[in-house]
Amino acid sequence: MSYAAPVKDMLFVMKELADLERIAALPGFEDANLDTAQAVLDEAAKFNGEVLAPLNFEGDKNPSAWRDGEVTTTPGFKDAFRQFSDGGWQGVMHPVEYEGQGLPKLIATPCIEMLNAANMSFALCPLLTDGAIEALLTAGTDAQKQLYVPKLISGEWTGTMNLTEPQAGSDLAQVRTRAEPQGDGSYKLFGTKIFITYGEHDLAKNIVHLVLARTPDAPEGVKGISLFLVPKFNVNADGSLGDRNDVQCVSIEHKLGIKASPTAVLQYGDHGGAAGYLIGEENRGLEYMFIMMNAARFAVGMQGIAVADRAYQKAVAYAKERVQSRPADGSAKQPVTIIHHPDVRRMLATMRTLTEGARSLAYVAAAHSDLARHLPDEKARASHQAIYEFLVPIVKGWSTEMSIDVASLGVQMHGGMGYIEETGAAQYYRDARILTIYEGTTAIQANDLIGRKTMRDGGATAQALLAQIDQTIAALAEREGQPFASMHRHLSAGSLSLARTIEFVVAKVKSDPNAVFAGSVPYLKLAGIVLSGWQMARALLAASDKRAEDESFYSAKIATAQFFAEHVLSMAPGIEASIVSASGDQGILALREDQF
Amino acid sequence: MSYAAPVKDMLFVMKELADLERIAALPGFEDANLDTAQAVLDEAAKFNGEVLAPLNFEGDKNPSAWRDGEVTTTPGFKDAFRQFSDGGWQGVMHPVEYEGQGLPKLIATPCIEMLNAANMSFALCPLLTDGAIEALLTAGTDAQKQLYVPKLISGEWTGTMNLTEPQAGSDLAQVRTRAEPQGDGSYKLFGTKIFITYGEHDLAKNIVHLVLARTPDAPEGVKGISLFLVPKFNVNADGSLGDRNDVQCVSIEHKLGIKASPTAVLQYGDHGGAAGYLIGEENRGLEYMFIMMNAARFAVGMQGIAVADRAYQKAVAYAKERVQSRPADGSAKQPVTIIHHPDVRRMLATMRTLTEGARSLAYVAAAHSDLARHLPDEKARASHQAIYEFLVPIVKGWSTEMSIDVASLGVQMHGGMGYIEETGAAQYYRDARILTIYEGTTAIQANDLIGRKTMRDGGATAQALLAQIDQTIAALAEREGQPFASMHRHLSAGSLSLARTIEFVVAKVKSDPNAVFAGSVPYLKLAGIVLSGWQMARALLAASDKRAEDESFYSAKIATAQFFAEHVLSMAPGIEASIVSASGDQGILALREDQF
Repeated sequence: MSYAAPVKDMLFVMKELADLERIAALPGFEDANLDTAQAVLDEAAKFNGEVLAPLNFEGDKNPSAWRDGEVTTTPGFKDAFRQFSDGGWQGVMHPVEYEGQGLPKLIATPCIEMLNAANMSFALCPLLTDGAIEALLTAGTDAQKQLYVPKLISGEWTGTMNLTEPQAGSDLAQVRTRAEPQGDGSYKLFGTKIFITYGEHDLAKNIVHLVLARTPDAPEGVKGISLFLVPKFNVNADGSLGDRNDVQCVSIEHKLGIKASPTAVLQYGDHGGAAGYLIGEENRGLEYMFIMMNAARFAVGMQGIAVADRAYQKAVAYAKERVQSRPADGSAKQPVTIIHHPDVRRMLATMRTLTEGARSLAYVAAAHSDLARHLPDEKARASHQAIYEFLVPIVKGWSTEMSIDVASLGVQMHGGMGYIEETGAAQYYRDARILTIYEGTTAIQANDLIGRKTMRDGGATAQALLAQIDQTIAALAEREGQPFASMHRHLSAGSLSLARTIEFVVAKVKSDPNAVFAGSVPYLKLAGIVLSGWQMARALLAASDKRAEDESFYSAKIATAQFFAEHVLSMAPGIEASIVSASGDQGILALREDQF
Repeated sequence: MSYAAPVKDMLFVMKELADLERIAALPGFEDANLDTAQAVLDEAAKFNGEVLAPLNFEGDKNPSAWRDGEVTTTPGFKDAFRQFSDGGWQGVMHPVEYEGQGLPKLIATPCIEMLNAANMSFALCPLLTDGAIEALLTAGTDAQKQLYVPKLISGEWTGTMNLTEPQAGSDLAQVRTRAEPQGDGSYKLFGTKIFITYGEHDLAKNIVHLVLARTPDAPEGVKGISLFLVPKFNVNADGSLGDRNDVQCVSIEHKLGIKASPTAVLQYGDHGGAAGYLIGEENRGLEYMFIMMNAARFAVGMQGIAVADRAYQKAVAYAKERVQSRPADGSAKQPVTIIHHPDVRRMLATMRTLTEGARSLAYVAAAHSDLARHLPDEKARASHQAIYEFLVPIVKGWSTEMSIDVASLGVQMHGGMGYIEETGAAQYYRDARILTIYEGTTAIQANDLIGRKTMRDGGATAQALLAQIDQTIAALAEREGQPFASMHRHLSAGSLSLARTIEFVVAKVKSDPNAVFAGSVPYLKLAGIVLSGWQMARALLAASDKRAEDESFYSAKIATAQFFAEHVLSMAPGIEASIVSASGDQGILALREDQF
């Protein structure tokens, strides 16, 4: 059940597709050269492989447990968290002035992938802490930043995001938690929050809850939501801990997977009110929450890639070891390891190409985020920011949807053994299943892709990406050989399908919103397939140029890209047909409620 | 967590697509008229809904438990099994002369669907008993049939299939269990069998194990395997029970799902040898096993349809109850039940249409089996048998593959609640995951589809089915309206894709087996999509003719068929492209073992 981070693959994507060299030349990233990247990734691979990966199965067998309001994490987690913190891993991409390492998101991203591949349940704690840090850096006062951020980065404390309530899932307009001003600048909070990841645990001395709530005179709906900081233990001005605050963990959930990660029900204010502090301005809470949510959504996309890679590695190991049946082509008279069977090869190649495609797109997105934050030119920054924001719902939605399929293939690859929990393949199938749900379901991502990301600029960002794809298609046309021919054929067809779908979305969303939103998730998947396929095409071009330098490595990249073209990109026209069907939404909405 | 059998939908398929009237007119089925079918289905719906469905979740929470060689099933199972047996449900399709009801497979099939939808873990016990009955009826002596079959049908005893050993999974050539002749016609068996469903339990007084083993002078490989009957308790000539036989359950597995169904490791002969009796002739065991396996494979296909329908029903109930977010088209100012959101509608329609499509194909296959057994004309029988056998791997492979997707959508439909075990949606996701593995993985089904079912007659049966599809396409062309236009377009394209794929398989399987087998599972899925789509097209025609009789029911059938065309059949050309790719198998086999 080991995990070996694919550092070489990661560096290939960073250098050849995400232009690490350019990122490293940005102002503020003077120390982030190729050597730094290599060193950080090697160190991360070592730590995650040796310390966290072995605890993953243990966390599934021996999950977090609740008793009398307190949560005990899996044996070994506490020590691992101390090592994680001491290693400075929480701070990789956070500012140096708050004790972070200030590295580009492009370097932090493979670290996040490794962390999640090694141990997704563990990784959720830092993931949420990242979100809290991001929100404080965006909207907190200087005093709040000074008081909280360094301790979150050092791992002394951890952070949470408190959005969901029993009646308010995806629809935050329904949030009812109350925040009453106390006259001294502080508030008292009252309400129930559910599904709070690491809402209670024993890994750190304090927990900094970021909580959506309403002040007494707030307007209805999402425009009346504010963001509050509620520490588990009150914090004195010097940063030392005071009394226990009035927030209690009343239970944790019994879940399908990520069992080591405690999912808490938190009760605020049952004993007079939980002391809370406004972050930023009143009624702008949703806006701040979206900042941390965008970061978290990207990170959840990385979780998909991570669990897919872990499932792939496990499947490969089994396929190379399990002996069963003679080969179909009669090339051996005795049973062979199953990796020699064509269907096993197809499953492994599918797992591999989906994972590499999603990884490539995500790392490229991370580079856009770095460019958007660090390029000197404002207009260039805005353009990269628009691309990054366009890609976030796709990275989140597509990487997680494919991760379920990949983890499922991982079970299938093991035959009957895959269904036995001791084998470990089933854990990835269970763990992956949350990823298309939390931090916004795939439908929510798809609505974001249509509404904020495609429509708001009239499709301009989408068109800009399509124009870049055309350049890649032109480059493919100049090369010879089957991999290029296959990729040219399927990327051309795929990008045409995506272009026509975007046209349909832009043209119809006002006049026939049901027709458009009925195809929202297929549109997201189509975009995921075509944009990942585009990155695989770029990888194909790069690998072909370098082939002589490292035949085995680059020929594998070429074969994996060709496989993506023929087996994944080839599905694009069918998805287009299902979105832009002759009948619009009638096929979906023709059935009345009572007919279901 | 209730289950209401869709009796009306089932009868629609039986009457309109599987020609129940013709089946009921076959010699031997004189009592199997439409009223009988309706009465049997109503009774089955009542029993399964009231007795077995409520125990399904309980079985997951409180699985079968092993202690000192004995297995205690979930509380309630024992009583339910007694009611199941008393109701005569084990015998629905078995011969009247052995106390069965002698009804057509077409009527037994919906009963099996209901049983599995209500409680898949429970249903596995009768499913394996059916297999044992089938094998005894095929190859047993009259004395064996008289001694064992009535007690298996009455539920006094149950049956198992013992194929797998630690080193022999899909590859039965590797079976090592030994059977030593004792000179008195009996044998002593020695060996270990794993993954034995209901290999030990407390539901019945005796367990009849059917075991693959080798006699001392048997040839190597699959041609040296014989089939033996090994009772848990030895059986006296008068049918009373004798001593405990030398077969021990040494453990049961800790599985991802179907937890109430005990999966046993059985040890034969640790104390001198387990008394066993040859079934049929020596060295023909695999042949007999295939007879029971074909029946079992069809039944596992039904399990897929069953769990998909159960997941669908649960998702619909939640979608009609859960209030969240305002509608995308602005038709309400307040949050609405989520069934009003287009993406929820898409998910529900997908679940529904996949389930109905697979059900239609399976019932039609069952009717072919009845015709193959009961038509007076031998040539006609052979032709229906060929179609039935062609359809079995598709019913097994496609219905189970789609069931995983449907169960996964069922989790997604519930949002965060879907991930909480108490909700119950996750159980279907876990339970369904075994279905593409046991009784032959999807790859094994696909190999069977290519080898025995497509190649052996040079593609003749496949061509015969394609010719029938053409007739349906011609009928669609004569109708007006969008549902017909959509179905005509996508069924035409789909059947062309299937035809070209079959052509490719037939042409290349000898010269380039790796290329063909690399596309085996996609070929099976393509066949599943096109053949189910064909049945949906026939349902569309029938429903359109009857629409005025029951507007709500038939218009739902029309909309569901149109949805299948636009969202499922539309994927067929993409799958064809992935099979018949320009590069043959190079995309898949280009990666060497060391490159994975």
